[in-house]
This record gives sequence, structure tokens and C-alpha cells, in this order.
Amino acid sequence: MLGYMNREALQRTLETGRAHLFRRSHGRVMVKGEQSGQFQLVREIWVDCDADAIVMKIEQVGGAACHTGHRSCFHRKLVGGKLEVVGEPVFDPKKVYGQ
Amino acid sequence: MLGYMNREALQRTLETGRAHLFRRSHGRVMVKGEQSGQFQLVREIWVDCDADAIVMKIEQVGGAACHTGHRSCFHRKLVGGKLEVVGEPVFDPKKVYGQ
Repeated sequence: MLGYMNREALQRTLETGRAHLFRRSHGRVMVKGEQSGQFQLVREIWVDCDADAIVMKIEQVGGAACHTGHRSCFHRKLVGGKLEVVGEPVFDPKKVYGQ
Repeated sequence: MLGYMNREALQRTLETGRAHLFRRSHGRVMVKGEQSGQFQLVREIWVDCDADAIVMKIEQVGGAACHTGHRSCFHRKLVGGKLEVVGEPVFDPKKVYGQ
């Protein structure tokens, strides 16, 4: 998944070992998995050359990072100009997030 | 690496099979590797759940994506509050980009 972090999100990630994001749709820092329980336990943090992006290697609680229930948000592959969904959802988003 | 693409960058990537980016510092679409010759041959394109980010799996010409000469822009690991450079540069940026 790709998400946005501000200073507070990074600090809380470092303090707790769980990925936090600044969720622009909510206007505040949230722990990833706050609604779903699908937390991300941070194992490694890598910083890019101009220090404006990081990659976090995580252990995904529940096996799915995506709100669709798929393991990854990047679960659609562009093949011959069309998007193909690859893999099955791990959970049912209706059950996790409600209707 | 993380980069910004607009519609034209994606179209030129699909047409040529080489990664293109909209380089904000240059104000135009450029093929990745235009200056360095370190082109990226695109093998797979994955689209995320809300279709505002893509992951491209690429074959890196020359072995390094980063302007520092490192294989990846994400070549610094956060360990105990400090950044550790992991791995050696593949090329000398002074030779590739000039002084």
C-alpha cells in the first residue's frame, strides 16, 4: 500500500512499532488497522535518497493490507490494456467495515 | 524509487516499454535514464485499489536506479535512530552526470 505520513505519524510508528498514517480523508493520524484490526508490525524502515519517502517492511496482521480484503492494495495487474484482479480477498470487507 | 507520473508519462511508458516520469524539477516528461542511460524496462504494471498509484516491476539497465549510483533509492536503513547506508554504489555519479 501507499500512504501519507507526517511527522506525528512517523513518530508514533517508531514509538509503537505499528504503522501509522496521516489519513487525509479523516484529517488525523491513525494507526493502520484502527477500524479493521489489520495492524502492520514494522520490521524495517528504509529511507530514500532525498528523504521524502520511506519503505516499511512489515508483518501484516490478518494477512491483508487492503480495504478490499486483498493482501496488497496493488492486486490489479495491467495486461493488454485491461486490469486483471490477481488473487482472492483474505477477508470480507462488509464484515470488517460494516455495510 | 518513487516518482511522479502524469497521463503523458504513463502513455509513453506503455508505448515504449521504458519507464517515463513527469519530473517536477524539469517541468516535463522524461524517460527515466535520459541523462544517465540507466533506463528501466517495464515488465509488469500493478495498479492500486483506488487507482492513484502504480507499482512497476522493471529490469534496471546498468543495475542502479538511484542518482547516487546505488541500486535502489531506498538504500538507507533506519537502525537505532540512525540511517545506515546498505550496499555500495554501482556507478560513480560524477562520471555519469558530470560535476
